[in-house]
Amino acid sequence: MTVGVFDSGVGGLTVLRAVHRRLPGVSTVYLGDTARVPYGTRSADTVERYAVKAAKFLTEREELSLFVVACNTASAVAVDALREALDVPVIGVVEPSAERAAQRSKTGRIGVIGTAGTVGSGAYQAALRRIRPEVEVVATACPLFVPLAEEGWCDEDDGVALSVAERYLSPLKAERIDTLVLGCTHYPMLRGVIGQIMGEAVELIDAAEAVAEIVASERPAESAAVSRRFYVTDLPKGFQTVAERFLDASIDDLHAVDLG
Amino acid sequence: MTVGVFDSGVGGLTVLRAVHRRLPGVSTVYLGDTARVPYGTRSADTVERYAVKAAKFLTEREELSLFVVACNTASAVAVDALREALDVPVIGVVEPSAERAAQRSKTGRIGVIGTAGTVGSGAYQAALRRIRPEVEVVATACPLFVPLAEEGWCDEDDGVALSVAERYLSPLKAERIDTLVLGCTHYPMLRGVIGQIMGEAVELIDAAEAVAEIVASERPAESAAVSRRFYVTDLPKGFQTVAERFLDASIDDLHAVDLG
Repeated sequence: MTVGVFDSGVGGLTVLRAVHRRLPGVSTVYLGDTARVPYGTRSADTVERYAVKAAKFLTEREELSLFVVACNTASAVAVDALREALDVPVIGVVEPSAERAAQRSKTGRIGVIGTAGTVGSGAYQAALRRIRPEVEVVATACPLFVPLAEEGWCDEDDGVALSVAERYLSPLKAERIDTLVLGCTHYPMLRGVIGQIMGEAVELIDAAEAVAEIVASERPAESAAVSRRFYVTDLPKGFQTVAERFLDASIDDLHAVDLG
Repeated sequence: MTVGVFDSGVGGLTVLRAVHRRLPGVSTVYLGDTARVPYGTRSADTVERYAVKAAKFLTEREELSLFVVACNTASAVAVDALREALDVPVIGVVEPSAERAAQRSKTGRIGVIGTAGTVGSGAYQAALRRIRPEVEVVATACPLFVPLAEEGWCDEDDGVALSVAERYLSPLKAERIDTLVLGCTHYPMLRGVIGQIMGEAVELIDAAEAVAEIVASERPAESAAVSRRFYVTDLPKGFQTVAERFLDASIDDLHAVDLG
Protein backbone atom coordinates (compact mmCIF):
# COMPACT_ATOMS: atom_id res chain seq x y z
CA MET A 1 0.00 0.00 0.00
CA THR A 2 1.25 3.37 -1.06
CA VAL A 3 0.49 7.03 -0.37
CA GLY A 4 -0.34 8.83 -3.62
CA VAL A 5 0.53 12.50 -3.96
CA PHE A 6 -0.90 14.41 -6.90
CA ASP A 7 -0.07 17.85 -8.23
CA SER A 8 -0.41 19.77 -11.48
CA GLY A 9 3.38 19.85 -11.84
CA VAL A 10 6.50 19.99 -9.69
CA GLY A 11 5.16 22.17 -6.86
CA GLY A 12 3.63 19.25 -4.95
CA LEU A 13 7.11 17.86 -4.47
CA THR A 14 7.43 20.28 -1.53
CA VAL A 15 4.49 18.41 0.06
CA LEU A 16 5.99 15.03 -0.85
CA ARG A 17 9.29 16.11 0.71
CA ALA A 18 7.49 16.87 3.99
CA VAL A 19 5.74 13.45 3.82
CA HIS A 20 9.09 11.70 3.25
CA ARG A 21 10.60 13.50 6.26
CA ARG A 22 7.64 12.75 8.52
CA LEU A 23 7.16 9.12 7.33
CA PRO A 24 10.45 7.81 5.94
CA GLY A 25 9.27 4.18 6.04
CA VAL A 26 6.15 4.69 3.90
CA SER A 27 6.13 4.05 0.15
CA THR A 28 4.90 6.91 -1.99
CA VAL A 29 3.96 7.54 -5.59
CA TYR A 30 3.80 11.00 -7.12
CA LEU A 31 1.88 12.13 -10.18
CA GLY A 32 2.66 15.52 -11.73
CA ASP A 33 0.31 16.50 -14.58
CA THR A 34 3.11 18.35 -16.34
CA ALA A 35 1.40 18.12 -19.75
CA ARG A 36 -1.43 20.33 -18.48
CA VAL A 37 0.30 22.45 -15.83
CA PRO A 38 -0.52 25.11 -14.62
CA TYR A 39 -4.00 24.54 -13.21
CA GLY A 40 -4.07 27.92 -11.48
CA THR A 41 -5.04 29.91 -14.57
CA ARG A 42 -7.80 27.56 -15.76
CA SER A 43 -11.55 27.40 -15.14
CA ALA A 44 -12.85 25.26 -12.27
CA ASP A 45 -14.54 22.83 -14.70
CA THR A 46 -11.32 22.16 -16.57
CA VAL A 47 -9.30 21.70 -13.37
CA GLU A 48 -11.89 19.23 -12.08
CA ARG A 49 -11.80 17.25 -15.33
CA TYR A 50 -8.00 17.08 -15.36
CA ALA A 51 -7.75 16.19 -11.66
CA VAL A 52 -10.29 13.35 -11.87
CA LYS A 53 -8.57 11.93 -14.96
CA ALA A 54 -5.19 12.01 -13.24
CA ALA A 55 -6.56 10.52 -10.02
CA LYS A 56 -8.22 7.63 -11.86
CA PHE A 57 -4.98 6.85 -13.64
CA LEU A 58 -3.06 6.74 -10.37
CA THR A 59 -5.59 4.64 -8.47
CA GLU A 60 -5.79 2.13 -11.34
CA ARG A 61 -2.03 1.89 -11.71
CA GLU A 62 -1.04 1.72 -8.02
CA GLU A 63 -2.54 0.27 -4.86
CA LEU A 64 -3.15 3.42 -2.83
CA SER A 65 -4.07 3.76 0.83
CA LEU A 66 -4.48 7.55 0.61
CA PHE A 67 -4.71 10.16 -2.12
CA VAL A 68 -3.13 13.51 -1.26
CA VAL A 69 -4.06 16.48 -3.46
CA ALA A 70 -0.94 18.63 -3.11
CA CYS A 71 -2.13 21.17 -5.67
CA ASN A 72 -3.90 24.09 -4.02
CA THR A 73 -5.99 24.88 -7.08
CA ALA A 74 -7.21 21.28 -7.40
CA SER A 75 -7.82 21.14 -3.64
CA ALA A 76 -9.79 24.36 -3.84
CA VAL A 77 -12.09 23.41 -6.73
CA ALA A 78 -12.01 19.62 -7.22
CA VAL A 79 -11.71 17.91 -3.83
CA ASP A 80 -15.43 17.00 -3.69
CA ALA A 81 -15.33 15.52 -7.20
CA LEU A 82 -12.21 13.55 -6.27
CA ARG A 83 -13.84 12.17 -3.10
CA GLU A 84 -16.79 11.05 -5.20
CA ALA A 85 -14.59 9.48 -7.88
CA LEU A 86 -12.17 7.57 -5.62
CA ASP A 87 -12.56 4.71 -3.13
CA VAL A 88 -9.65 5.84 -0.91
CA PRO A 89 -9.51 8.77 1.53
CA VAL A 90 -8.69 12.07 -0.17
CA ILE A 91 -6.65 14.72 1.68
CA GLY A 92 -6.46 18.23 0.24
CA VAL A 93 -4.15 21.06 1.24
CA VAL A 94 -6.73 23.77 1.88
CA GLU A 95 -8.28 22.45 5.11
CA PRO A 96 -5.01 21.64 6.96
CA SER A 97 -3.46 25.00 6.00
CA ALA A 98 -6.56 26.94 6.97
CA GLU A 99 -6.74 25.05 10.28
CA ARG A 100 -3.15 25.91 11.09
CA ALA A 101 -3.52 29.57 10.08
CA ALA A 102 -6.67 29.97 12.15
CA GLN A 103 -4.88 28.49 15.18
CA ARG A 104 -1.74 30.62 14.85
CA SER A 105 -3.23 34.04 14.13
CA LYS A 106 -3.54 36.25 17.21
CA THR A 107 -5.31 39.21 15.65
CA GLY A 108 -7.56 37.18 13.35
CA ARG A 109 -6.31 39.17 10.35
CA ILE A 110 -5.14 36.50 7.90
CA GLY A 111 -3.74 36.85 4.38
CA VAL A 112 -3.92 34.21 1.65
CA ILE A 113 -1.81 34.19 -1.50
CA GLY A 114 -2.23 31.68 -4.31
CA THR A 115 -3.02 31.26 -7.99
CA ALA A 116 -5.92 33.09 -9.65
CA GLY A 117 -7.87 29.80 -9.56
CA THR A 118 -7.32 29.22 -5.85
CA VAL A 119 -8.01 32.80 -4.78
CA GLY A 120 -10.98 33.14 -7.14
CA SER A 121 -12.58 29.94 -5.79
CA GLY A 122 -12.90 31.46 -2.30
CA ALA A 123 -12.04 28.04 -0.81
CA TYR A 124 -9.49 29.37 1.72
CA GLN A 125 -11.72 32.24 2.70
CA ALA A 126 -14.63 29.82 3.30
CA ALA A 127 -12.48 27.29 5.21
CA LEU A 128 -11.01 29.98 7.49
CA ARG A 129 -14.44 31.44 8.29
CA ARG A 130 -15.82 27.94 8.96
CA ILE A 131 -13.06 27.25 11.47
CA ARG A 132 -13.00 30.71 13.08
CA PRO A 133 -15.97 32.81 12.01
CA GLU A 134 -14.69 36.23 13.11
CA VAL A 135 -11.48 36.22 11.02
CA GLU A 136 -10.76 38.91 8.46
CA VAL A 137 -9.30 37.36 5.31
CA VAL A 138 -7.44 39.25 2.59
CA ALA A 139 -6.57 37.19 -0.49
CA THR A 140 -4.37 38.04 -3.47
CA ALA A 141 -3.30 36.10 -6.57
CA CYS A 142 0.44 36.25 -7.36
CA PRO A 143 0.81 34.76 -10.87
CA LEU A 144 4.49 35.62 -11.30
CA PHE A 145 5.59 33.67 -8.21
CA VAL A 146 5.35 30.29 -10.00
CA PRO A 147 7.67 31.16 -12.91
CA LEU A 148 10.03 32.95 -10.49
CA ALA A 149 10.30 29.77 -8.41
CA GLU A 150 10.81 27.63 -11.53
CA GLU A 151 13.54 29.97 -12.79
CA GLY A 152 15.26 29.54 -9.41
CA TRP A 153 15.22 33.32 -8.81
CA CYS A 154 14.38 32.68 -5.19
CA ASP A 155 17.21 34.02 -3.03
CA GLU A 156 15.99 36.41 -0.38
CA ASP A 157 18.16 39.18 -1.81
CA ASP A 158 17.15 38.56 -5.46
CA GLY A 159 16.28 42.00 -6.85
CA VAL A 160 13.75 40.76 -9.39
CA ALA A 161 11.98 38.50 -6.90
CA LEU A 162 11.86 41.30 -4.32
CA SER A 163 10.37 43.79 -6.78
CA VAL A 164 7.68 41.28 -7.85
CA ALA A 165 6.92 40.37 -4.23
CA GLU A 166 6.71 43.97 -3.15
CA ARG A 167 4.13 44.75 -5.83
CA TYR A 168 1.92 41.80 -4.86
CA LEU A 169 2.35 41.97 -1.08
CA SER A 170 2.30 45.69 -0.25
CA PRO A 171 -1.52 45.79 -0.17
CA LEU A 172 -1.53 42.79 2.22
CA LYS A 173 1.01 44.47 4.44
CA ALA A 174 -1.14 47.60 4.53
CA GLU A 175 -3.99 45.40 5.83
CA ARG A 176 -1.87 44.59 8.93
CA ILE A 177 -2.30 40.81 8.72
CA ASP A 178 -0.32 38.73 11.25
CA THR A 179 -0.51 35.39 9.38
CA LEU A 180 -0.03 34.64 5.69
CA VAL A 181 -1.04 31.34 4.07
CA LEU A 182 1.31 30.31 1.24
CA GLY A 183 -1.60 28.88 -0.75
CA CYS A 184 0.40 27.48 -3.66
CA THR A 185 2.98 24.72 -3.45
CA HIS A 186 5.57 26.81 -5.30
CA TYR A 187 5.54 29.66 -2.81
CA PRO A 188 7.63 28.03 -0.05
CA MET A 189 10.53 28.27 -2.53
CA LEU A 190 10.14 32.07 -2.19
CA ARG A 191 9.76 31.99 1.58
CA GLY A 192 12.84 34.18 2.19
CA VAL A 193 11.71 36.81 -0.30
CA ILE A 194 8.14 36.85 1.03
CA GLY A 195 9.50 37.10 4.59
CA GLN A 196 11.69 40.07 3.62
CA ILE A 197 8.67 42.00 2.35
CA MET A 198 6.17 41.00 5.06
CA GLY A 199 8.57 41.36 8.00
CA GLU A 200 9.11 39.17 11.03
CA ALA A 201 5.80 40.01 12.67
CA VAL A 202 3.91 38.00 10.02
CA GLU A 203 3.93 34.21 10.33
CA LEU A 204 4.07 32.30 7.05
CA ILE A 205 1.95 29.13 6.87
CA ASP A 206 3.32 26.39 4.59
CA ALA A 207 0.83 23.64 3.76
CA ALA A 208 3.48 20.96 3.42
CA GLU A 209 3.97 20.30 7.13
CA ALA A 210 0.30 20.63 7.98
CA VAL A 211 -0.53 18.04 5.31
CA ALA A 212 2.29 15.68 6.34
CA GLU A 213 0.84 15.71 9.86
CA ILE A 214 -2.64 14.75 8.62
CA VAL A 215 -1.12 11.99 6.47
CA ALA A 216 0.76 10.69 9.53
CA SER A 217 -2.46 10.71 11.58
CA GLU A 218 -3.96 8.25 9.07
CA ARG A 219 -1.15 5.82 10.02
CA PRO A 220 -0.25 4.57 6.54
CA ALA A 221 1.50 1.16 6.57
CA GLU A 222 5.30 1.08 6.39
CA SER A 223 7.01 -1.06 3.76
CA ALA A 224 10.01 -3.34 4.19
CA ALA A 225 11.29 -2.09 0.84
CA VAL A 226 10.33 1.58 0.57
CA SER A 227 9.44 2.61 -2.98
CA ARG A 228 9.34 6.20 -4.24
CA ARG A 229 7.90 6.27 -7.73
CA PHE A 230 7.22 9.31 -9.91
CA TYR A 231 4.88 9.71 -12.90
CA VAL A 232 4.69 12.78 -15.09
CA THR A 233 2.44 13.40 -18.09
CA ASP A 234 5.17 15.30 -19.94
CA LEU A 235 8.92 15.25 -19.56
CA PRO A 236 10.34 18.53 -20.87
CA LYS A 237 14.06 19.25 -20.94
CA GLY A 238 15.40 20.26 -17.56
CA PHE A 239 12.46 18.73 -15.69
CA GLN A 240 14.58 16.53 -13.46
CA THR A 241 16.81 19.41 -12.33
CA VAL A 242 13.86 21.58 -11.31
CA ALA A 243 12.06 18.63 -9.71
CA GLU A 244 15.06 17.56 -7.64
CA ARG A 245 15.46 21.16 -6.40
CA PHE A 246 11.81 21.11 -5.22
CA LEU A 247 12.09 17.63 -3.66
CA ASP A 248 15.55 18.26 -2.26
CA ALA A 249 16.50 14.68 -3.17
CA SER A 250 17.26 12.65 -6.27
CA ILE A 251 14.51 11.17 -8.44
CA ASP A 252 15.25 7.74 -9.90
CA ASP A 253 12.05 5.81 -10.53
CA LEU A 254 10.58 8.32 -13.04
CA HIS A 255 8.03 7.46 -15.77
CA ALA A 256 6.37 9.59 -18.43
CA VAL A 257 2.77 8.59 -19.12
CA ASP A 258 0.20 9.86 -21.61
CA LEU A 259 -3.23 10.79 -20.23
CA GLY A 260 -4.42 12.05 -23.64
CA MET B 1 -13.42 30.30 -47.07
CA THR B 2 -11.73 31.45 -43.93
CA VAL B 3 -8.18 32.02 -42.69
CA GLY B 4 -7.53 29.95 -39.57
CA VAL B 5 -5.12 31.25 -36.94
CA PHE B 6 -4.00 28.89 -34.22
CA ASP B 7 -2.12 29.57 -31.00
CA SER B 8 -1.61 27.91 -27.64
CA GLY B 9 -3.46 30.78 -25.94
CA VAL B 10 -4.06 34.50 -26.33
CA GLY B 11 -0.65 35.48 -27.71
CA GLY B 12 -1.56 34.66 -31.31
CA LEU B 13 -4.15 37.43 -31.18
CA THR B 14 -1.28 39.84 -31.90
CA VAL B 15 -0.81 37.96 -35.20
CA LEU B 16 -4.55 37.90 -35.86
CA ARG B 17 -4.68 41.66 -35.22
CA ALA B 18 -2.03 42.20 -37.91
CA VAL B 19 -3.99 39.96 -40.33
CA HIS B 20 -7.19 41.95 -39.64
CA ARG B 21 -5.38 45.23 -40.34
CA ARG B 22 -3.74 43.95 -43.54
CA LEU B 23 -6.85 42.11 -44.82
CA PRO B 24 -9.97 43.70 -43.33
CA GLY B 25 -12.27 42.00 -45.86
CA VAL B 26 -11.17 38.43 -45.13
CA SER B 27 -13.05 36.17 -42.69
CA THR B 28 -10.96 34.63 -39.94
CA VAL B 29 -11.32 32.00 -37.26
CA TYR B 30 -9.03 31.80 -34.24
CA LEU B 31 -8.34 28.80 -32.03
CA GLY B 32 -6.57 29.30 -28.70
CA ASP B 33 -5.71 26.05 -26.88
CA THR B 34 -6.20 27.73 -23.52
CA ALA B 35 -6.82 24.40 -21.72
CA ARG B 36 -3.24 23.33 -22.48
CA VAL B 37 -1.40 26.66 -22.66
CA PRO B 38 1.57 27.26 -22.36
CA TYR B 39 3.28 25.12 -25.00
CA GLY B 40 6.65 26.77 -24.43
CA THR B 41 7.58 24.74 -21.37
CA ARG B 42 6.57 21.34 -22.81
CA SER B 43 8.44 18.64 -24.72
CA ALA B 44 8.39 18.72 -28.53
CA ASP B 45 6.35 15.47 -28.68
CA THR B 46 3.61 16.87 -26.48
CA VAL B 47 3.46 20.16 -28.40
CA GLU B 48 3.17 18.25 -31.68
CA ARG B 49 0.36 16.08 -30.32
CA TYR B 50 -1.58 19.09 -29.00
CA ALA B 51 -1.07 21.14 -32.17
CA VAL B 52 -2.22 18.38 -34.52
CA LYS B 53 -5.29 17.71 -32.38
CA ALA B 54 -6.20 21.40 -32.39
CA ALA B 55 -5.56 21.77 -36.13
CA LYS B 56 -7.76 18.79 -36.96
CA PHE B 57 -10.58 20.21 -34.89
CA LEU B 58 -10.38 23.55 -36.69
CA THR B 59 -10.17 22.11 -40.21
CA GLU B 60 -13.13 19.80 -39.53
CA ARG B 61 -15.23 22.55 -38.02
CA GLU B 62 -14.50 25.37 -40.51
CA GLU B 63 -13.79 25.63 -44.21
CA LEU B 64 -10.23 26.95 -44.19
CA SER B 65 -8.20 28.31 -47.08
CA LEU B 66 -5.05 28.70 -44.96
CA PHE B 67 -3.84 27.56 -41.55
CA VAL B 68 -1.60 30.04 -39.74
CA VAL B 69 0.42 28.74 -36.78
CA ALA B 70 0.79 31.91 -34.72
CA CYS B 71 2.44 30.08 -31.81
CA ASN B 72 6.23 30.22 -32.07
CA THR B 73 6.73 27.01 -30.11
CA ALA B 74 4.31 25.05 -32.32
CA SER B 75 5.86 26.63 -35.43
CA ALA B 76 9.31 25.65 -34.19
CA VAL B 77 8.58 22.00 -33.42
CA ALA B 78 5.34 20.95 -35.13
CA VAL B 79 5.06 22.70 -38.50
CA ASP B 80 6.15 19.60 -40.46
CA ALA B 81 3.65 17.41 -38.65
CA LEU B 82 0.92 19.99 -39.30
CA ARG B 83 1.75 20.15 -43.03
CA GLU B 84 1.48 16.37 -43.15
CA ALA B 85 -1.81 16.29 -41.23
CA LEU B 86 -3.65 19.07 -43.10
CA ASP B 87 -4.84 19.53 -46.69
CA VAL B 88 -4.52 23.34 -46.65
CA PRO B 89 -1.34 25.44 -46.80
CA VAL B 90 0.30 25.89 -43.38
CA ILE B 91 2.13 29.13 -42.55
CA GLY B 92 4.30 29.25 -39.44
CA VAL B 93 5.84 32.30 -37.76
CA VAL B 94 9.47 31.17 -37.67
CA GLU B 95 10.34 31.45 -41.40
CA PRO B 96 8.80 34.91 -42.01
CA SER B 97 10.41 36.36 -38.86
CA ALA B 98 13.80 34.82 -39.64
CA GLU B 99 13.56 36.12 -43.22
CA ARG B 100 12.85 39.64 -42.03
CA ALA B 101 15.60 39.58 -39.38
CA ALA B 102 18.18 38.29 -41.86
CA GLN B 103 17.24 41.10 -44.29
CA ARG B 104 17.32 43.89 -41.70
CA SER B 105 20.52 43.05 -39.81
CA LYS B 106 23.55 45.03 -40.99
CA THR B 107 26.20 43.37 -38.81
CA GLY B 108 24.80 39.84 -39.08
CA ARG B 109 24.69 39.61 -35.28
CA ILE B 110 21.11 38.58 -34.50
CA GLY B 111 19.44 37.84 -31.17
CA VAL B 112 16.42 35.59 -30.66
CA ILE B 113 14.25 35.52 -27.56
CA GLY B 114 11.41 33.05 -27.01
CA THR B 115 10.10 30.28 -24.79
CA ALA B 116 12.33 27.44 -23.59
CA GLY B 117 10.67 25.19 -26.20
CA THR B 118 11.29 27.58 -29.10
CA VAL B 119 14.88 28.41 -28.15
CA GLY B 120 15.69 24.81 -27.30
CA SER B 121 14.39 23.57 -30.66
CA GLY B 122 17.03 25.59 -32.52
CA ALA B 123 14.44 26.36 -35.22
CA TYR B 124 15.20 30.09 -35.45
CA GLN B 125 18.92 29.49 -35.40
CA ALA B 126 18.59 26.97 -38.26
CA ALA B 127 16.25 29.19 -40.29
CA LEU B 128 18.52 32.23 -39.97
CA ARG B 129 21.61 30.25 -41.02
CA ARG B 130 19.72 28.74 -43.96
CA ILE B 131 18.75 32.22 -45.21
CA ARG B 132 22.08 33.93 -44.45
CA PRO B 133 24.79 31.41 -43.57
CA GLU B 134 27.33 33.80 -42.03
CA VAL B 135 25.03 35.20 -39.31
CA GLU B 136 25.91 34.93 -35.63
CA VAL B 137 22.83 34.00 -33.62
CA VAL B 138 22.47 34.39 -29.85
CA ALA B 139 19.28 32.92 -28.38
CA THR B 140 17.82 33.21 -24.88
CA ALA B 141 14.64 31.92 -23.26
CA CYS B 142 12.68 34.50 -21.22
CA PRO B 143 10.04 32.51 -19.28
CA LEU B 144 8.83 35.43 -17.15
CA PHE B 145 7.87 37.59 -20.13
CA VAL B 146 4.63 35.66 -20.76
CA PRO B 147 3.18 36.09 -17.26
CA LEU B 148 4.37 39.72 -17.21
CA ALA B 149 2.45 40.40 -20.43
CA GLU B 150 -0.64 38.59 -19.10
CA GLU B 151 -0.53 40.61 -15.86
CA GLY B 152 -0.45 43.75 -17.99
CA TRP B 153 2.81 44.91 -16.36
CA CYS B 154 4.01 46.11 -19.73
CA ASP B 155 4.54 49.88 -19.56
CA GLU B 156 8.00 50.90 -20.66
CA ASP B 157 8.67 52.45 -17.25
CA ASP B 158 7.32 49.48 -15.24
CA GLY B 159 9.97 48.76 -12.61
CA VAL B 160 9.26 45.04 -12.33
CA ALA B 161 9.20 44.52 -16.11
CA LEU B 162 12.43 46.47 -16.51
CA SER B 163 14.23 44.46 -13.82
CA VAL B 164 13.12 41.16 -15.40
CA ALA B 165 14.06 42.36 -18.90
CA GLU B 166 17.44 43.58 -17.77
CA ARG B 167 18.32 40.20 -16.29
CA TYR B 168 17.35 38.31 -19.45
CA LEU B 169 18.65 40.79 -22.01
CA SER B 170 21.97 42.03 -20.58
CA PRO B 171 23.88 39.03 -21.98
CA LEU B 172 22.36 39.69 -25.45
CA LYS B 173 23.31 43.35 -25.22
CA ALA B 174 26.87 42.36 -24.35
CA GLU B 175 26.95 40.32 -27.58
CA ARG B 176 26.40 43.55 -29.57
CA ILE B 177 23.51 42.26 -31.67
CA ASP B 178 21.83 44.81 -33.99
CA THR B 179 18.56 42.88 -34.53
CA LEU B 180 16.39 41.04 -32.02
CA VAL B 181 13.63 38.60 -33.01
CA LEU B 182 10.67 38.68 -30.61
CA GLY B 183 10.17 34.93 -30.99
CA CYS B 184 7.03 34.60 -28.87
CA THR B 185 3.67 36.19 -29.62
CA HIS B 186 3.45 37.70 -26.13
CA TYR B 187 6.65 39.68 -26.42
CA PRO B 188 5.38 42.53 -28.62
CA MET B 189 3.29 43.53 -25.58
CA LEU B 190 6.63 44.24 -23.86
CA ARG B 191 8.12 46.02 -26.85
CA GLY B 192 8.64 49.30 -24.97
CA VAL B 193 10.37 47.59 -22.06
CA ILE B 194 12.60 45.49 -24.32
CA GLY B 195 13.44 48.60 -26.35
CA GLN B 196 14.42 50.46 -23.16
CA ILE B 197 16.94 47.78 -22.26
CA MET B 198 18.31 47.06 -25.75
CA GLY B 199 18.54 50.71 -26.84
CA GLU B 200 17.63 52.35 -30.13
CA ALA B 201 20.48 50.77 -32.11
CA VAL B 202 18.81 47.34 -31.92
CA GLU B 203 15.87 46.71 -34.26
CA LEU B 204 13.07 44.56 -32.83
CA ILE B 205 11.46 42.07 -35.23
CA ASP B 206 7.81 41.29 -34.56
CA ALA B 207 6.46 38.23 -36.39
CA ALA B 208 2.94 39.59 -36.66
CA GLU B 209 3.54 41.90 -39.61
CA ALA B 210 5.86 39.50 -41.39
CA VAL B 211 3.20 36.78 -41.16
CA ALA B 212 0.36 39.10 -42.22
CA GLU B 213 2.36 39.91 -45.34
CA ILE B 214 2.78 36.21 -46.22
CA VAL B 215 -0.93 35.63 -45.61
CA ALA B 216 -1.75 38.55 -47.92
CA SER B 217 0.54 37.12 -50.61
CA GLU B 218 -1.63 33.98 -50.67
CA ARG B 219 -4.55 36.24 -51.70
CA PRO B 220 -7.28 34.74 -49.50
CA ALA B 221 -10.81 35.41 -50.77
CA GLU B 222 -12.77 38.33 -49.31
CA SER B 223 -16.24 37.76 -47.92
CA ALA B 224 -19.34 39.89 -48.41
CA ALA B 225 -20.17 39.33 -44.74
CA VAL B 226 -16.88 39.23 -42.85
CA SER B 227 -16.91 36.76 -39.96
CA ARG B 228 -14.46 36.78 -37.04
CA ARG B 229 -15.00 33.70 -34.93
CA PHE B 230 -13.03 32.59 -31.85
CA TYR B 231 -12.70 29.16 -30.25
CA VAL B 232 -10.96 28.44 -26.97
CA THR B 233 -10.48 25.12 -25.20
CA ASP B 234 -10.93 26.69 -21.77
CA LEU B 235 -12.61 29.91 -20.70
CA PRO B 236 -11.14 31.03 -17.38
CA LYS B 237 -12.36 34.15 -15.58
CA GLY B 238 -10.94 37.32 -17.05
CA PHE B 239 -10.08 35.66 -20.37
CA GLN B 240 -12.04 38.11 -22.49
CA THR B 241 -10.37 41.16 -20.90
CA VAL B 242 -6.87 39.84 -21.53
CA ALA B 243 -7.79 38.63 -25.03
CA GLU B 244 -9.31 41.96 -26.07
CA ARG B 245 -6.16 43.75 -24.85
CA PHE B 246 -4.03 41.49 -27.08
CA LEU B 247 -6.40 41.80 -30.09
CA ASP B 248 -7.02 45.50 -29.51
CA ALA B 249 -10.67 44.95 -30.50
CA SER B 250 -13.79 43.40 -29.03
CA ILE B 251 -14.46 39.66 -29.25
CA ASP B 252 -18.09 38.69 -29.81
CA ASP B 253 -18.37 35.36 -31.58
CA LEU B 254 -16.57 33.33 -28.84
CA HIS B 255 -17.05 29.59 -28.22
CA ALA B 256 -15.54 27.25 -25.64
CA VAL B 257 -14.88 23.74 -27.01
CA ASP B 258 -13.55 20.58 -25.37
CA LEU B 259 -10.69 18.80 -27.13
CA GLY B 260 -10.36 16.21 -24.32
